[in-house]
Order: sequence, then C-alpha cells, then structure tokens
Amino acid sequence: MYELGVVYRNIARVDGVVAERLGELGSATLHEAMGRTGLLKPYMRPIYAHARASGTAVTVLLHPGDNWMMHVAAEQIRPGDVVVAAVTADCTDGYFGDLLATSFKARGAKAVVIDAGVRDVEVLQAMQFPVWSKAISAKGTIKATLGSVNIPVVCAGELVRPGDVIVADQDGVVAIPAAFAEQVLEKALAREHQEGEKRARLASGVLGLDMYSMREPLRQAGLRYID
Amino acid sequence: MYELGVVYRNIARVDGVVAERLGELGSATLHEAMGRTGLLKPYMRPIYAHARASGTAVTVLLHPGDNWMMHVAAEQIRPGDVVVAAVTADCTDGYFGDLLATSFKARGAKAVVIDAGVRDVEVLQAMQFPVWSKAISAKGTIKATLGSVNIPVVCAGELVRPGDVIVADQDGVVAIPAAFAEQVLEKALAREHQEGEKRARLASGVLGLDMYSMREPLRQAGLRYID
Amino acid sequence: MYELGVVYRNIARVDGVVAERLGELGSATLHEAMGRTGLLKPYMRPIYAHARASGTAVTVLLHPGDNWMMHVAAEQIRPGDVVVAAVTADCTDGYFGDLLATSFKARGAKAVVIDAGVRDVEVLQAMQFPVWSKAISAKGTIKATLGSVNIPVVCAGELVRPGDVIVADQDGVVAIPAAFAEQVLEKALAREHQEGEKRARLASGVLGLDMYSMREPLRQAGLRYID
Amino acid sequence: MYELGVVYRNIARVDGVVAERLGELGSATLHEAMGRTGLLKPYMRPIYAHARASGTAVTVLLHPGDNWMMHVAAEQIRPGDVVVAAVTADCTDGYFGDLLATSFKARGAKAVVIDAGVRDVEVLQAMQFPVWSKAISAKGTIKATLGSVNIPVVCAGELVRPGDVIVADQDGVVAIPAAFAEQVLEKALAREHQEGEKRARLASGVLGLDMYSMREPLRQAGLRYID
Amino acid sequence: MYELGVVYRNIARVDGVVAERLGELGSATLHEAMGRTGLLKPYMRPIYAHARASGTAVTVLLHPGDNWMMHVAAEQIRPGDVVVAAVTADCTDGYFGDLLATSFKARGAKAVVIDAGVRDVEVLQAMQFPVWSKAISAKGTIKATLGSVNIPVVCAGELVRPGDVIVADQDGVVAIPAAFAEQVLEKALAREHQEGEKRARLASGVLGLDMYSMREPLRQAGLRYID
Amino acid sequence: MYELGVVYRNIARVDGVVAERLGELGSATLHEAMGRTGLLKPYMRPIYAHARASGTAVTVLLHPGDNWMMHVAAEQIRPGDVVVAAVTADCTDGYFGDLLATSFKARGAKAVVIDAGVRDVEVLQAMQFPVWSKAISAKGTIKATLGSVNIPVVCAGELVRPGDVIVADQDGVVAIPAAFAEQVLEKALAREHQEGEKRARLASGVLGLDMYSMREPLRQAGLRYID
Repeated sequence: MYELGVVYRNIARVDGVVAERLGELGSATLHEAMGRTGLLKPYMRPIYAHARASGTAVTVLLHPGDNWMMHVAAEQIRPGDVVVAAVTADCTDGYFGDLLATSFKARGAKAVVIDAGVRDVEVLQAMQFPVWSKAISAKGTIKATLGSVNIPVVCAGELVRPGDVIVADQDGVVAIPAAFAEQVLEKALAREHQEGEKRARLASGVLGLDMYSMREPLRQAGLRYID
Repeated sequence: MYELGVVYRNIARVDGVVAERLGELGSATLHEAMGRTGLLKPYMRPIYAHARASGTAVTVLLHPGDNWMMHVAAEQIRPGDVVVAAVTADCTDGYFGDLLATSFKARGAKAVVIDAGVRDVEVLQAMQFPVWSKAISAKGTIKATLGSVNIPVVCAGELVRPGDVIVADQDGVVAIPAAFAEQVLEKALAREHQEGEKRARLASGVLGLDMYSMREPLRQAGLRYID
Repeated sequence: MYELGVVYRNIARVDGVVAERLGELGSATLHEAMGRTGLLKPYMRPIYAHARASGTAVTVLLHPGDNWMMHVAAEQIRPGDVVVAAVTADCTDGYFGDLLATSFKARGAKAVVIDAGVRDVEVLQAMQFPVWSKAISAKGTIKATLGSVNIPVVCAGELVRPGDVIVADQDGVVAIPAAFAEQVLEKALAREHQEGEKRARLASGVLGLDMYSMREPLRQAGLRYID
Repeated sequence: MYELGVVYRNIARVDGVVAERLGELGSATLHEAMGRTGLLKPYMRPIYAHARASGTAVTVLLHPGDNWMMHVAAEQIRPGDVVVAAVTADCTDGYFGDLLATSFKARGAKAVVIDAGVRDVEVLQAMQFPVWSKAISAKGTIKATLGSVNIPVVCAGELVRPGDVIVADQDGVVAIPAAFAEQVLEKALAREHQEGEKRARLASGVLGLDMYSMREPLRQAGLRYID
Repeated sequence: MYELGVVYRNIARVDGVVAERLGELGSATLHEAMGRTGLLKPYMRPIYAHARASGTAVTVLLHPGDNWMMHVAAEQIRPGDVVVAAVTADCTDGYFGDLLATSFKARGAKAVVIDAGVRDVEVLQAMQFPVWSKAISAKGTIKATLGSVNIPVVCAGELVRPGDVIVADQDGVVAIPAAFAEQVLEKALAREHQEGEKRARLASGVLGLDMYSMREPLRQAGLRYID
Repeated sequence: MYELGVVYRNIARVDGVVAERLGELGSATLHEAMGRTGLLKPYMRPIYAHARASGTAVTVLLHPGDNWMMHVAAEQIRPGDVVVAAVTADCTDGYFGDLLATSFKARGAKAVVIDAGVRDVEVLQAMQFPVWSKAISAKGTIKATLGSVNIPVVCAGELVRPGDVIVADQDGVVAIPAAFAEQVLEKALAREHQEGEKRARLASGVLGLDMYSMREPLRQAGLRYID
C-alpha cells in the first residue's frame, strides 16, 4: 500500500562522494557485499551499451499509463540524483522521453531507473542521459492521477527509499540503503581488492579449485572423477 | 537489501478479528479502499478453485532453490497467520509441499503466499490448505543458506511487513499494512455498502452512464454518438 | 490507428440464430473452417471451467488502466451480444467486475472477451457470466480518457468488427466476420459431419494412417521404418 | 540435432507394473529420488484438474504447426504407453484433439505429454484422456514435413528416450530413464515410507527444526533470534 | 479471419514524399499525433542500433514456420516499400535472411517489419538493411502453405493495410493509415514545432510544472507537499 | 534425469580444424544442414554485438543459484573448448563473471554458452570473451551442491554431449553432434556454395519465384493474383 498524493521535499541523501565511490565498484560487487541482495530484477536493462551511473534516489510512484508525477519529481531533483520510478501495475508505456530528460538533466539528474517503458532512446543516447527500464516503447502517457514523490517504493522487486544510493551498469541496478551505504562501501572495497589478486592468479593458470581450496570439500561432497 | 540470518520472534500482529473482517471484503474491494495499491502482482494465483484466506503475515526471505528458512518460519507461526515467502531472485522451484503444510497447519497457519513454486497440490487441496504462488513445480529445494524470518520483504512486487494483514482470494492477494488496517476496513465497508445498492440498480437495467452521472463529463470530453 | 471518442449506435449484427449455431460448433472446428485463421491469441482463457458462449460483437476500445468506455458500451448492448474489449497497450488491470457484469447481463450480454484483466471472478462464476481474458487481477481502473465503441478493434491479435460473430469455449475464442458467417457455418457443419464418422472409425481401432491414406505420401516423403 | 524421417518400431519398454508403481508415487517424490532431476519444465500443465497418469514413452518429434507424425505415432502405441511429443521450435498450436485422442485411446495410450498446444479439451476431459501441455489452443496444424517416432527427444527441457517411464500429475511431469526405473522406484518407496512417519509427527505439532535436527546447523550458520 | 491464397497486385500507396516526411518525425511523435494509437507492440525491436526507416506497406500473411509467401511478396515490392509480415500464430522462426534481403533490396524495399524471427543479422547489418522483429533465430522455414500478399493484416497487434505508411526507429514501429497520412503529418509537424521550443525552455531550467501550468490542477487533485 | 557428482575427464572431442571450419559457416547454414534441427532456443543471446565463436563442448550441469561446478569444469577445459552450462531448473542468476572468464580464458576456452545469467559483461566485452546466455544479472551464486562435468546435458532445449561442436553467432547457437560433424560440414559447405550464386542472381533483380521455379507449385496450390 502506498501513501498517495504526497511529495516529500526534504529527504536525507547519502553523501555524494560515497555514492560516487559505490558507483565505481559496480553492481555485481555491491550486490555480493550486500549478501547477494539489493538487486533490481534483471529485466531492467540500460537503453544503450556502456551506460553506467550512480547517485542518490529521488523516488516517484506512477499509475499505469500516467506520467504526471514525473513532472512533479523534476522539481525535487538535486545534482547527483537518480530518479527511480515505480508503477502501481505492470506497464510498458513510454513514460519518459527527451523533453523530460532535458529537464531532469538541467536539474542535475544523472540517470533514470523506471519499471516501465522509455522512448526517444536515440536522442537520450545522443544526450548521454542513461536510463534503465523494462521496455522501450513509443507509447505516450496521460496526466490524470496523483501518485507520490519521495516515498519508499518497490521498483522492479526491490524496496527503494528516497536518498538511497542507486548504482546501475551493464549488469543491472542495485539499491543500497542509506543506512548501510558506508558499510557496504567498505565490504565492497575489501572484496574488490581481493578480486584483483585473484584475477592475476587465475590469469596465470592457477585453478579456482586450488585457489579456493575446493578439492577437499568437493571430495567430501562425493565428487567422483572418471577417466 | 535484506538483513540476513535473523528471526524476529516478537512481532505485533493486527487483531485477528480485524483480519477476518478484512478477509470477508475480498481483495478487489480492499485494493480500491487502499487507493488502488496494495495488490501483489497478478501472476500470484491460488492452487485450487474457490480458495480464500486472510490472516496476519509471518514473513520469510528465501534464496533461490533453498527452503531452509521455511522450517525456521514454522516455529514463528501463531493461529491465524499467513506465511508470506519472498525469494532473492526469480525461482519457480517447489519450496512448499504437503509435509510443510502439515506442520504449518498444525501451528495454526491459514495459508501460504509464495513468490515461487509449490508442490503436492493434490494433497494440499485435499487438506484444504490454500496456497497462492507463481508456479506449481515438483522441483525440490536444498537447505544450505540463511535467509530471515519476520523482516519486511518484497513479495511479488509488494512490501509486506510482519504482522500486516494478508487477504487472498480468486482475484489475487492484497497486503494491508498494520498501521492502516482499521482505516482500510472502514473505507472498504463503506464501499461495500454502496456496491450493494448499485448492484440492485444495475440489475434492474439502470445504466452506469446514468447512475454515475457520466453523460455530461463524456460529452465535455468530446464523445460523439454516430447513428 | 483508431478513431477515438466515437460511439457507433447502429451496427449490423449477424442473425442471432446463425451466431447460436456457430456457437454449437466450437472454436476449433470454426477455426479450421476459416482456413486456420480467426483465432484470438491462446493466452485468452476462460475464467472458469466449462465456460462456453457465442454472440454478436459489441466492440470497445480502452486505454491502459481506464475502463470508462465499458460504461458507454453497456448502453449499446442488445440481447445476444458479446462485448469485445481491446486496449491500446498491454495491461493486466481488472477492467471488469461484478457490477459491470450485472449491468451487462441486465442488457442481455452473453459474455465478455477482454484483452486485459478481470476481477470478482468468484461472483462472475456464481452469476454464470463467462469472461475470456488474459489475466485475473483485483487491480481497479480509472475513468479519464475517451476510447470508442463499435469501431473495428484488434483484440488479442485478431481484427474484430462490430456485429461479427464471437464463439468462445475452453479451446479459445474465434471471431467470424459478419460477411462470412453463413459460409463458415456451412463449411464447419460439413466438417463436423465428417468428424462424427471419423471418430467412430478411429474408436474402432482404424488408424489415421489408413483412414486418411497417409502411408503412400509418407513413403514418398522418405519415411523409413526400422525394426 | 535429430534423426529425421525414421520410425523405430521395436523399442524396449520398462515393465508395465514398474511404470504403474512409479505412477503411484507421484512426480514430486520421484523427482527427489532422482537427485532433484528428471522434471519437465513447470510450464507443462494438465488440461483438467486431478489428472494423473503413468506409462512408457512413445516419443514423437514434430515440426512447428505440423502434426503429421502424430498419426504415424498412433500405430506404434501399445497399451500402457504415454505419447511424448517434442517440437523443433517453440509453438503453441493445437496439435492434438479429440479425433487423435480417440485413436490413441483405442490403441491403449494412457496420456499425451506435448511441448505445444492441445485442443478439444472439453471433450478430452469428458473422455478422461489426460494431456499435459504448454498451451491450450484451437489452432490447427498441417501435415507436410517428416519428423520421427521413437527417437530420443528433448521435451520441455528434459531428454526422453522411447520406453522410459513417464509419470504426470498435478505437480508436473517426470521422465524416468528405463535403465534406472527400478532403482528410482526403490529409492522413492523408501522416501515415501519415511514421509508417512514424518507427516504424523509434524501433524502432532513437532517442528521440522527438531525432527530434522536443524537447530544446531542453523546456529552454526549464524542464525540469530531477536526478541 | 483472413482471405487466403490471394495476391493483390495494384495497391494504392501513400505518396513517397509524405512517407519520407513522416519518417523524419519518428514513431513517438507520430504515435502522439494519432491520439496515442497506431503503435505495434513494443516487443518489436530493430536488429541493430540506430536503425531507422519509413515507407509504404506491402503486407504478407504467413503461416507458422513457412515463409513461402515472402517470395511471392518480393515481386510486389516497389522502391520505397516496407514489407510488413504477419503470422497466423505465434512463431519465432527465422523467416527472413540475407538471400531474401538481397532480393528485397534489389526490388527497392527499405525495411522489413515481421512479427516473427529473422536471421543472418550480421549480414543484414553489413548490408544496412534494417529489420524490426520479435526474435532473432537461425531456425529456417518451409514452403508448403499459401498465405496472402497485400491483404490487411494484424502485425504485432496493429492493423496494417497495404499502402499504409510504416515508420520504424529505435522507439518502435508505427503504422499510419493511408487515409490519415497527411492529417497525421500536419499534426505531428505542429507537435514537433512545439517540442523544439519546449526543449529549449526545459534545458534552461524551467520546470514542466510551470511550463505546462500544472501546479493548480495538481493542487486541485489534492497533491500535498510535506517538508 | 542426470548422473550427479561425476566428472568425466577423458572425452573424445571433434577435431579442432573441423570445429573451426563449421564455425566459419555460421549457425543458420549449419542448422539447415542438420534438417532444421540442432538450434538452442532463440532466447540464447550474445552479450555483445558481433560475438562469434566455435569449439568443442565441455559440458557442466548446475543447480539453481549454485556455480560450484563451473570451477570443476575449468580444469577440464582444453584449448579450443566452449563451455556449455545447463541448470536443473529455470534460473537467471549470474553464474559466470570476469574471474571465471579469466580462468577459462587462461585454460584456452573460446566461449561460454549458459542457460542462465552472466555478469561483468562490460569486462567480458573488454576481454573479448563471448558468452551466450538467457539473461544478464549481477546476482551471484553459492557453492553448495554437486552437479556434473562432461555428461550429456540439455541446454536451452538442445541435447549437448561433451566433445560436440558448438557454433555460436548473432543468429544463435547450434550444437553439432560429434558423430555427424564431418557430414554436416560437407552439407553446409555445399549449401554455402549454392548461396553465393543465388545471392548474385537475386541482387541482379531475379526473383526467387523464378530462381526456385515456384510459380507453378504456387499456381497448383491455388494462388490467385488480383489486379
């Protein structure tokens, strides 16, 4: 159930530097650092190759086929924000296009994550304004029903609260709760550090079987080799 | 992001009588009373015809292909509860079958709502233990990874907190936040009351166009009749 | 592209007796009689077992999440009609429920075919008012945007013109153009007649291979039997 | 890659009694006894409630929209067989209806499992001839291209060889390789035996946590209880 | 229902200049100019990035897994045409590849829009012959059953008549009926003109809330701002 | 049913030169040469444009959400291999990322084909290590349950045996059984040869109708031209 017809103006945002550093780590590493949680459903895809963004969430709740609240959300954007849009029912309509993108960009938004459709993707790519969506569709929307801005929303299966950190890349989109942002950053940095070493060893031909000491547990689990 | 490896034992549940009365109203009426929000995705279907249940949520977070936490959840069930199970990734495996159903029923559970698969549906129907799920699958699961019990979860696109009211029927599943349960009940009762009158008028041949005074707004919107 | 904001009041309907006789033949036989065309997409399913209906089409064009025109359509229903509802974009919302069904039934409608969702299915089954839909969903709709009534619509991939015959059963829904209704009836009756004979022969153990003289064409196509 | 245009007439079938006993155990128990493998994809659903069948596989390979080989398969059916039909590409057409069912039944077939569509389901239910399929569709097929009969096929993601045991019920369809049928039967019987005891204990209120001695492993995995 | 086995040779095409000018406006703008109708389902995607085409429709009706009529259609192509192919049932087979593309291109076709699969996409991209399809699949087809050429077809949910204008780009595919082509062009040009101005204002930081005078209607609808 | 917990170390591989020559022909031509069979389901897509690979199959069977066996598989890779990974249930988790890719590449693997998800796709593209998968997902996996390596597996609907040839490109993935590799190569080369000639004729404006002598069969099938 959602609180409808409200706009929360003063939201606490994670520090922009933290959001940026989380962004450098990528969705896969962050998702692991959160105990393999925090990932939006994998049907959320970037509209062009090599898209990559991170920032703090301004959330919007929309109704099917109605993008009125996107205009309301525009005013709440501050530089470094990522707009996260949820819809109260499954919908692939193109809620977001080049006009809104122009406005969002002028306000300092870094990206849009929308559990619906997007259009004008050719122009959005030319503008280098990335969007992660579940569909691309020229279908336009109306402006008739109130949703809300900056309430907690479920977007593509994940709870996102205003001010949370959003990191999106080719692998998907993760939402990092504000309360855990620094802790996740630390864990992810530690993980990242280890990965560099591991990569070098694997590249030299060392097997994960040996590097991770898996042979004994596999044997105990009953793995048999047959020549 | 989810808190993993925890079980909250003492949760505040909505009063059982309220849950029951909400159950009598049905998911469609309640969904309207919540401003057309609160509905789990429509892929959640009952495993047999005429299933109907309401109760207070005990929530479980599961990993793909792993139902270990269902056993942990069993102990937290009190009479009148509905177990709501979410998974950290899309999965259709059969997490729940007749043995768990026997245990859940013995504990007083009224139903299971699971964003995954269920099995032994023939037996579950014979037991009259209803389940709403996204799949039916004989595929079994392992017991290897910790999830959590009684944390807020996103199940089929909807946030469910422990103790919330769950109402499920042929039209789908709604989650009514504990904090709003009484208010939703009132609104839904008012709505229900009006519907009885309307039904009688429509049955007598009165048109919605007249009953809802739609002719003028339609004309103003530009509707043209062509003979 | 659709003509929007119009209601055609005087439509030519196929004779009710023809519609009824077509209904007796069933969707599979009719679909064959139309050269294996005329079938709506197979995701259109009846909301309860053993549903079966036929009648003349009153068509409605709806927008996503908006059922305003269903009320406009109600007035155009005459006894023996089947309301066929199309939507301008994919949508699973519950556009149709027990109140509209009460009204439609009072007007003489025999069924609804809707390329979207339906709700109150428990009540609809009790009323024995059949609906073929692509989803069941408690999600309600608004009344904000004009569509049209009795224009040609594409419903679940098939063009349906007002007055066409609709036949729906457990196998699906077919639309028979008014201009071809009698011709399709004749062909389907001939086919039906042959099927009775064939059924008896097959039941007695005769093989289709022999009854349809397939052995020689199979041999010529190169079929080899290996012992 | 498939061998095309061939019919293997002499196939080794698992003993009918074994097939029947496997059938009594149900797909969920058998799937567990096979190490959680052997299950066809869960989109395979019975066309009517309470359907249940087991038997030895006669396999058919079909092309999209072409059911010619179903007639060839009919001749290879012996009492106790289940016809398993695979298609070389995704297709929902109605390959199988009441005429073929009449013929298959006359030959002694117990069921059809088809990775495509089926039609005349009302009649099939009246005949009590069960079918598991991925779709119901009135769409008919042509007879133009050779497939094969009694070659190994992949049906709904599972390899099925002629003569294998097929067990199908409300939970899905499993294929038990002929070579392992007796061994799977034994394991499944043992499992079934244990389940009876477990069910009684769970019904009396014993928790799976205790019955399966899960408390200690859960504690070691780090599970924390919070009051 | 479709007329089968016919080829209409003389079809009235929208003037090529009109088709070209419509093409410059793009699918999103045209779709709006048609009252948010006219868009094929959003699963229709271009096979390579930055594809863009417009032209007059030559329509083809195909059967599942059978591309015979594509060869018949080739002869009906005139310079500036876009071939629009519909199938009588859902199918993802690769009906169209580099050989047909070579032939279509030699005839002057500008693109193919097909509600099925396509193959040889690497070559098609090298040839710069764009295709919008619902799938990419190496699966080939047979030549066994008659469909039709230049009859009205439903392609991806939209009615397309021979001679209509097709505009396809990254946002999707729209079909503009011949009878409305000039009117849609005018409306779309007017819309386009306005968009230029709007874009400049939004880029300068003006909010849509002010530019579209939305603040008052939002207030009246009950929107509340919370600090 | 699968044999679990085994690794076959000595598998017979098709000669590397044959695998390479097959790779040059592409999936569409090979699929035709195999009688329009051998293609994995078209949902298998490359993670970046212009990916292309061929090699001999090392097969892996995985459980949902568990990539333990990928590490076991790494040791079995020889230069020129393509790792083909199947899962015992539908799963989109990211089983494979840059670390495993580094290891696989160091062992000489040319590509991965996985009926599940993949992650780190930005890095994989930079490494030019191609993957064909059904999803891209940052979701990580656990290491808890034994599958097998180098057993026959069903991957995306197609049976793949260790040592078979895998050819993957933009059109999809085909599996060519070792026993038929040379025969398929011959047929495909013959086909390829013919295509060159045909392409030239079609480019010059010759119609397929004439080149393939289709006019007479079309006429006999009843095709009518209407002016």
